[in-house]
Amino acid sequence: MPGGDHAARLAALQHEARTAGIDAVLVAPGPDLRYLVGYDAVPLERLTCLVVPAAGDPVLVAPRLEVLAAQASPVGSLGLAVLPWGELDDPYSVVASVVPGALSVALDNHMWAEKVLALRDAMPAVEQVLAGPLIARQRMRKDAAEVEALIAAGAAIDRVHEAVPGLLRPGRTEREVGADIADLIIDVGHVRVDFVIVGSGPNGASPHHEVSDRILERGDVVVVDIGGTMPDGYRSDCTRTYAIGEAPEGFAARYEALQQAQAAAVAHARPGVTCESVDGAARVVLEAAGMGDLFIHRTGHGIGLETHEEPYIVSGNTLVLETGMAFSVEPGFYVEGSYGARIEDIVIATEGGVTVANNRPRDLVVA
Amino acid sequence: MPGGDHAARLAALQHEARTAGIDAVLVAPGPDLRYLVGYDAVPLERLTCLVVPAAGDPVLVAPRLEVLAAQASPVGSLGLAVLPWGELDDPYSVVASVVPGALSVALDNHMWAEKVLALRDAMPAVEQVLAGPLIARQRMRKDAAEVEALIAAGAAIDRVHEAVPGLLRPGRTEREVGADIADLIIDVGHVRVDFVIVGSGPNGASPHHEVSDRILERGDVVVVDIGGTMPDGYRSDCTRTYAIGEAPEGFAARYEALQQAQAAAVAHARPGVTCESVDGAARVVLEAAGMGDLFIHRTGHGIGLETHEEPYIVSGNTLVLETGMAFSVEPGFYVEGSYGARIEDIVIATEGGVTVANNRPRDLVVA
Repeated sequence: MPGGDHAARLAALQHEARTAGIDAVLVAPGPDLRYLVGYDAVPLERLTCLVVPAAGDPVLVAPRLEVLAAQASPVGSLGLAVLPWGELDDPYSVVASVVPGALSVALDNHMWAEKVLALRDAMPAVEQVLAGPLIARQRMRKDAAEVEALIAAGAAIDRVHEAVPGLLRPGRTEREVGADIADLIIDVGHVRVDFVIVGSGPNGASPHHEVSDRILERGDVVVVDIGGTMPDGYRSDCTRTYAIGEAPEGFAARYEALQQAQAAAVAHARPGVTCESVDGAARVVLEAAGMGDLFIHRTGHGIGLETHEEPYIVSGNTLVLETGMAFSVEPGFYVEGSYGARIEDIVIATEGGVTVANNRPRDLVVA
Repeated sequence: MPGGDHAARLAALQHEARTAGIDAVLVAPGPDLRYLVGYDAVPLERLTCLVVPAAGDPVLVAPRLEVLAAQASPVGSLGLAVLPWGELDDPYSVVASVVPGALSVALDNHMWAEKVLALRDAMPAVEQVLAGPLIARQRMRKDAAEVEALIAAGAAIDRVHEAVPGLLRPGRTEREVGADIADLIIDVGHVRVDFVIVGSGPNGASPHHEVSDRILERGDVVVVDIGGTMPDGYRSDCTRTYAIGEAPEGFAARYEALQQAQAAAVAHARPGVTCESVDGAARVVLEAAGMGDLFIHRTGHGIGLETHEEPYIVSGNTLVLETGMAFSVEPGFYVEGSYGARIEDIVIATEGGVTVANNRPRDLVVA
């Protein structure tokens, strides 16, 4: 089970806070809370907030009716103090009272604006900054159990892609295919479908198209980009491109360049190289093929308890990869009005290279 | 299809902004964006932001690779201007450039802290307030199509409850029952499972317990509180309490008081009465039965494109109900270590009373 050592994660966060001169870190429900203390709470209007002072014991401020649920999570075995508030109390002043001398607090990046502004009102003299830089350093470097979790998620989504060619029959709509894929995502072991992109023909040219009522035709190229959440919270995300019958003229040559670009970026990725150099390794291949203008997005994003998290594999990101960093490598090309194509694998940096979590063939699959 | 008249919704928001002296409203992906322009975008690290100036034309600032997806939504037919930003641009300065003279902006309540703080840095002289008060007035008063959507969602979740008694067999775990319920929630027409609470025996005493590996036994009381999202975005939420064989001694009398409390609150609710008076109508019945201390939460919450939204049915909320307001009526009682019980229906205020969206029997169902 990933994330056993919550006490160590909290201690590391406190160390980062002290180094940055931050007095406390405030964490609402979301991936940071789950990472730090294992509590998978739903973000709602009632405030739940983990208060992590730079020194001293963290406290979970929670609505009274959530206390039993919180204590049933690893919060209970951690021995974390839980400070309940009642339906008629002001929870923001409860948070303020936990860190009375604070001059600066860091807020988790996903905290809702309504909480951010209410905390500002409750602690008017306190400077608010983002907690992302304090937490991302640990979250980026996956430990052995997290790497295992990502590999298991990759194997699960690979099983869905294995079934996709059988679903792509002319006459069916993208929506029908997408519904089947959503069922399969759950069947193979995910607890939640995060996204299902079935971009057929011209719809494939919109990288974040989802599904539509477009009817699949012979000769379509279809981009299938799918992902879900496993029971432990870790995510899958994998793209393959399919052709129904023969692809349009000229597509095959472009696809071959894409395959080379994706393979080049995977081959380049390893501890010690920068994120932007991985992006560059894919981009240079597509530029050499005269396709630079068709590759309209970054090469990848980190993945873990979120589908998109640090590190981002993008020009300008000079962060150096370290062992345990997990991210997608997903170059693509997009021709408006005609088609798109993308190949995406999740990889995890390991000594001298990467472990690849997705292992379905990367050739154009003719369905 | 609910939400046809997006132009009118935008105009009403602009009117509210002018009345409040706010120069612009900034709306990131979430229920407000879907309500205002019909665009069901996923909140992600890349900024998508609808900029609604108090006067003048709204603009959608969106990542370039999302533009086609945005235009495929009602954003396209609305004729809304879309301002794309590229992978290497700063989207926050793009937002600032759309409303160069703004002194005050309202942010949607769910906007992530990372966006809130980045906007503050990009517009340092601008006061930030919450958009909730400007949008909630319209969102609370459901139009005819929205009422129909909530009734359809209620009928769907009723079909799941109809099947629940057959799932509650001694020897099964809460988790197994919950998995079956999740499948059913999709089968009856939802596109997403929002929550599945199966609180058996002592677990029922935790109002926000989800599921566990506890094995159902004869004599258990089981609280089943479930909900999902329909294709149009509207939510269901309904609780029934079941007994496996005979309930524990003393439970039946308490349950009868609960039924009376829930019925009293539903009978009291109508346009012209306050939210807190609906809460009081349930509470006074439980207090008279000596159970006031066992009813540890508010009586209800609004529902629509979110499971929890305004109006909240809670002591202190003097908001007066109006036609079209939709909310839950869900008193309960909780005895730590033993059991809990709750009865929940969604109701919509209509002339002289309410329409009830959930219609399964409210007697204790013996499975």
